[in-house]
Amino acid sequence: MISKAQVKHIRSLDDKKKRYEYKQFVVEGIKMVDELLKSQYEIVEIFATQYWISNHAPSGISKLKISLITEQSLSRISGLKTPNEVLALVVMPDATSIPNFDKALALDNIQDPGNLGSIIRIADWFGISTIICNAQTVDVYNPKVLQATMGSVFRVTCYYTDLLNYIIQQTSNKTYAAVLNGSNVNEMEKITNGLILIGNESAGIDEKLIQHCDFEISIPQKGNAESLNAAVATGIICNTLFK
Amino acid sequence: MISKAQVKHIRSLDDKKKRYEYKQFVVEGIKMVDELLKSQYEIVEIFATQYWISNHAPSGISKLKISLITEQSLSRISGLKTPNEVLALVVMPDATSIPNFDKALALDNIQDPGNLGSIIRIADWFGISTIICNAQTVDVYNPKVLQATMGSVFRVTCYYTDLLNYIIQQTSNKTYAAVLNGSNVNEMEKITNGLILIGNESAGIDEKLIQHCDFEISIPQKGNAESLNAAVATGIICNTLFK
Repeated sequence: MISKAQVKHIRSLDDKKKRYEYKQFVVEGIKMVDELLKSQYEIVEIFATQYWISNHAPSGISKLKISLITEQSLSRISGLKTPNEVLALVVMPDATSIPNFDKALALDNIQDPGNLGSIIRIADWFGISTIICNAQTVDVYNPKVLQATMGSVFRVTCYYTDLLNYIIQQTSNKTYAAVLNGSNVNEMEKITNGLILIGNESAGIDEKLIQHCDFEISIPQKGNAESLNAAVATGIICNTLFK
Repeated sequence: MISKAQVKHIRSLDDKKKRYEYKQFVVEGIKMVDELLKSQYEIVEIFATQYWISNHAPSGISKLKISLITEQSLSRISGLKTPNEVLALVVMPDATSIPNFDKALALDNIQDPGNLGSIIRIADWFGISTIICNAQTVDVYNPKVLQATMGSVFRVTCYYTDLLNYIIQQTSNKTYAAVLNGSNVNEMEKITNGLILIGNESAGIDEKLIQHCDFEISIPQKGNAESLNAAVATGIICNTLFK
């Protein structure tokens, strides 16, 4: 069962301000909740259909945290076009102090939820667990971002900070800015650690940030497209630059 | 001015069947129409606001082909959430006989319009002008695909065919199937010609197709994500495999 107040609370979390006020976010669908249950994330409550409880609930899970709901009730709290058997209310992990890292990504103003989700999935593929975002980058707990990560969000942490300040102050890693007229990334020496900076989908990286980076790198263009999608560029650079 | 019949005709082209019946498709927005006008594509008619005519219409363009319409009329024919000054009705080019090529992509069941659009943009970036799609791959003239190409669609041609038959019969190019457990693409010799086969977002490439490919290639995974987005994988392989 789900109360009216719970419906209202869950739906309010579509709004970024409310998510940060309550420090909670919503995870939906069989695949995403499966990945959530494998992670260390703290779950407030799981709302699931009988189908999910019979077929997907792990045997060890506390029954106290699962509420059986009908498909109809699920559709009232779901943000998906086609609700998918289960929805979890999750506690936002603390992501205030950026840890030391070997490899990390930094994002300047990534606006498109699909791009951020895809970049998180790429980071997870290449074993990168830290992404440092400027405050204007789309929120990682935006439902569209979460879906696009395909579960990788539980293995990669996004830290939102003053990126310029961070890049100026950090000295332990070389920084590589992805730009349109930099050195050919395919000809650079492969590295085991470093911070790769990716810019906004149309405006690129803020000039002030570029000035404080150690290298400007580019993917060689052989045809006529003006640019590559930010996520595609991230994938190519991660595969090429990191050992 | 735009007639009721024209409104009905243009809106009908949202439907793939109608597009192929009339052999026409719709191109929208300043950037896309700008790229269209630089191409050899045959334009049936351009519907534009006074703003576009004053600021963006090239001087050489035949006035006969441009109809002035109001923002309000544009919103009646536009498929965009925010109509963007101009809409062109365009003749579908003939794409029945696949030309000889040095480098090409083959797509097996790419379903997501954003992925196909992104793959076309990647092809254009790497100077690849031929994409061979199986019949179940999303239609290139789908409005969401077109928008995602950012104009690259006018420099890259998609040919829809029986892909298995094509791969069996063609012998002039080596074929490289992108799979999850193939040879490390980073360790392969770079090539100047070849056909790269990319599979469906969740099911991968049909086994029957893989059997007829010369090489199975993979992007080495260092972390935990189960897969990469089809477009991201295409970008990485194009950058790594092609000289």
